[in-house]
Amino acid sequence: MHKTLSHQLAEFTVNLKFKDLPTSTVRLAVLSFLDWLGSGIRGGRESPGRIVREMVAEMGGNPQATILTTGERSSALGAALVNGVSSHILELDDVHKASIFHPAAPVMPAALAAAELVQADGKKLIEGIVAGYEVGIRIGEAVTPSHYKKWHTTGTCGTFGAAAAAGKILNLNVEEMVHALGNAGSQAAGLWEFIEDGAMTKHLHPGKAAMNGLLSAILASKGFTGARRILEGKRGFFVSTAKEYDVGKVVAGLGNKYKIEENCFKIHSSCRHTHAALDVVIGLAERENIIPAEVASVKAGVYRVALDIVNNPDPKTVYAAKFSLPFCLALGLVKRKAGLEYFSLETLSDPVIREVMKKIKIEVDPELESMYPERWPVRVTIGTKRGTFKGKTDYPKGDPENPVSGEDLKKKFYDLVLPVLDEEKVRSIVKSVINLPEARSPQDVLKWLAKN
Amino acid sequence: MHKTLSHQLAEFTVNLKFKDLPTSTVRLAVLSFLDWLGSGIRGGRESPGRIVREMVAEMGGNPQATILTTGERSSALGAALVNGVSSHILELDDVHKASIFHPAAPVMPAALAAAELVQADGKKLIEGIVAGYEVGIRIGEAVTPSHYKKWHTTGTCGTFGAAAAAGKILNLNVEEMVHALGNAGSQAAGLWEFIEDGAMTKHLHPGKAAMNGLLSAILASKGFTGARRILEGKRGFFVSTAKEYDVGKVVAGLGNKYKIEENCFKIHSSCRHTHAALDVVIGLAERENIIPAEVASVKAGVYRVALDIVNNPDPKTVYAAKFSLPFCLALGLVKRKAGLEYFSLETLSDPVIREVMKKIKIEVDPELESMYPERWPVRVTIGTKRGTFKGKTDYPKGDPENPVSGEDLKKKFYDLVLPVLDEEKVRSIVKSVINLPEARSPQDVLKWLAKN
Repeated sequence: MHKTLSHQLAEFTVNLKFKDLPTSTVRLAVLSFLDWLGSGIRGGRESPGRIVREMVAEMGGNPQATILTTGERSSALGAALVNGVSSHILELDDVHKASIFHPAAPVMPAALAAAELVQADGKKLIEGIVAGYEVGIRIGEAVTPSHYKKWHTTGTCGTFGAAAAAGKILNLNVEEMVHALGNAGSQAAGLWEFIEDGAMTKHLHPGKAAMNGLLSAILASKGFTGARRILEGKRGFFVSTAKEYDVGKVVAGLGNKYKIEENCFKIHSSCRHTHAALDVVIGLAERENIIPAEVASVKAGVYRVALDIVNNPDPKTVYAAKFSLPFCLALGLVKRKAGLEYFSLETLSDPVIREVMKKIKIEVDPELESMYPERWPVRVTIGTKRGTFKGKTDYPKGDPENPVSGEDLKKKFYDLVLPVLDEEKVRSIVKSVINLPEARSPQDVLKWLAKN
Repeated sequence: MHKTLSHQLAEFTVNLKFKDLPTSTVRLAVLSFLDWLGSGIRGGRESPGRIVREMVAEMGGNPQATILTTGERSSALGAALVNGVSSHILELDDVHKASIFHPAAPVMPAALAAAELVQADGKKLIEGIVAGYEVGIRIGEAVTPSHYKKWHTTGTCGTFGAAAAAGKILNLNVEEMVHALGNAGSQAAGLWEFIEDGAMTKHLHPGKAAMNGLLSAILASKGFTGARRILEGKRGFFVSTAKEYDVGKVVAGLGNKYKIEENCFKIHSSCRHTHAALDVVIGLAERENIIPAEVASVKAGVYRVALDIVNNPDPKTVYAAKFSLPFCLALGLVKRKAGLEYFSLETLSDPVIREVMKKIKIEVDPELESMYPERWPVRVTIGTKRGTFKGKTDYPKGDPENPVSGEDLKKKFYDLVLPVLDEEKVRSIVKSVINLPEARSPQDVLKWLAKN
């Protein structure tokens, strides 16, 4: 009998075992978890996180799962919602390129809440994370780019990923997992229309994806049924949300290697299109010990999309600053860092930064244009009285082709979390996350989040 | 300035006042509420209701709102979810024809939970119901029939209706209501794919619509923002979920008369396409005192869609029985009623019923075919030794053109609820619902639902 796509994904998810995972896969799962924790803990302090947390607190619930930002406990569904909303706010969460999908924001909150609900050990949590990334990313790849024109993949495909992660951790069997995916797909939602107003909806999407995916898995564990052909069915997810889609991408090579290894991390707190140039500029500034006063000119050659999106020479808001390559490169030269703490109105009006910004010129390099989007390359030339310094890269740091180290991600975590949690706690979190494969329960990590 | 559709719907909703509503509108809101209560109380005893109730109970929550089936209290979001799931299970809830939308199942649970949350009085609850029906139905009309080919309107448009109802009761201002509609639209979901498997997803849709609409309204009351052009925007709900749509239907004549007056009620526990024939057969059986043994032939002339959907001469399951006109008409002749209690395997194998079924013949009447779908007509001829009896109708009872009486709906309520609640309580519920415009709080009605 021909197996449905859901059936194949369910078999993959149910049969996935920690002991069969390559070391590199486990490492990526652990680092992705650490990276997500930083965004979730810190991001939840922003308005969208605070509002959703307030609503969840008013609704009340059994203390089943942890809200990252406060360390308070809530119902599993409530925690998944709050943590999902919180993790996408800073725009520092991970991304998978081929699916244009931010996997951590919907998948991790569902996985963690499910793990807390059943006190799963670290190995089981990692199985759930790997399965959730795999399912969400593969469905995203199947519908990209057509789906993405209207639908926010992180919300829609995130719901499937969250259901798979939670379902794995709740020990669903294949039949139940098929139903969980069916009900995930029939709850999948999230339209790009919010972008016109910069509305908070963007953060609601991964929060609801996490919650709805977890809900689908819990219901399935109790016998609630869903559509068996939710993806390829004639009134299913694919045909309803994408003009074109490639069914084959859902299962091609499934289980041979894991999509989480294609995960990309963001080190800088700005638009991804600024990152390659930032890497090069910071690298040159450090290597040549360039100081702002000696900079006579900075020329950055980029691909056209980068010029179109990040060529704002005079950003007036913190949000606009994240999409201004001149501002970001000035930060790189002056601060040698583009961390969250520098995206402020104060830095935006810093005369030293402004002076350097005037010397920065962005232009399309035809050679680089032909390399995009497989690569996101940049060529930088910095002119000083001491001489001319040149640097280049084809991939921003954090891409699998130019990977970050564990130390890079720890540093990012410290930068994000040290301003809001005691240093001892922060170090304990990092240590316990690195030891996640040996954790007896999620509490090994989460106990350090208790309220300050 | 040109006002967005959301803005116009928000202004309508915010400005709607009980004192301006025609008596006929208030009457329909009250009867629709009673009708919904019956489906919700009784329907929640079925598996999908029981499973979702169990999940919500495990999550816990503050006792803010009432679960109809048990009288227990739960968080407002949890109660909206459970009651929404419960109200669509029996397929006895109301329907609006032009939008192919079941408004009560998503709108009422959101309205009631919001009313309990703020202890709104009966007039405010009615305002919410009228606003929610109006918004959900109008958006449904705008996207029908294109949207309906893939999307379950009761889930998708129901989310908007639920948000409007809850937002009205939570006293949102116009700005907040626009945001609530924006986030309702970006959560709107529900694919028809479940129908292939007869999955429980069908009931999840109105449950999630109620919950998500209420969530949108609560978040908006706390300052959470949403897309301003969620309907007509270039990445909004219309263009993303319907090949064709009519923007004009959203606001044409808005406020002149109320869509809730177009509401249709189901008296018989079977597919709507069996209802007109059932009305005629039961009417003839009662008027002529026809007994089963004397029936020689029954000929029903119908429109083609009815023949296609309900011509099953030998139903084997309870579900199939609801789509078998021969079985339903035999019920009408033998029991003079097609109530929930007769859709059972026992009745299906009743030899008296089976004998009458053999004498029933369904055929397309070309004259009736030309009247559909504006009318759902039927012509019935019953042959007996005493003579031939003929009857006809153009609309099933419960359509606005062939309205049910308050007594009809009370009788339906008693039939549904008396088997599961004490008679005294049932009579008290009916009395308090009829007095809803004078209720000080939802407790005037809900106190009678306390656990048996």
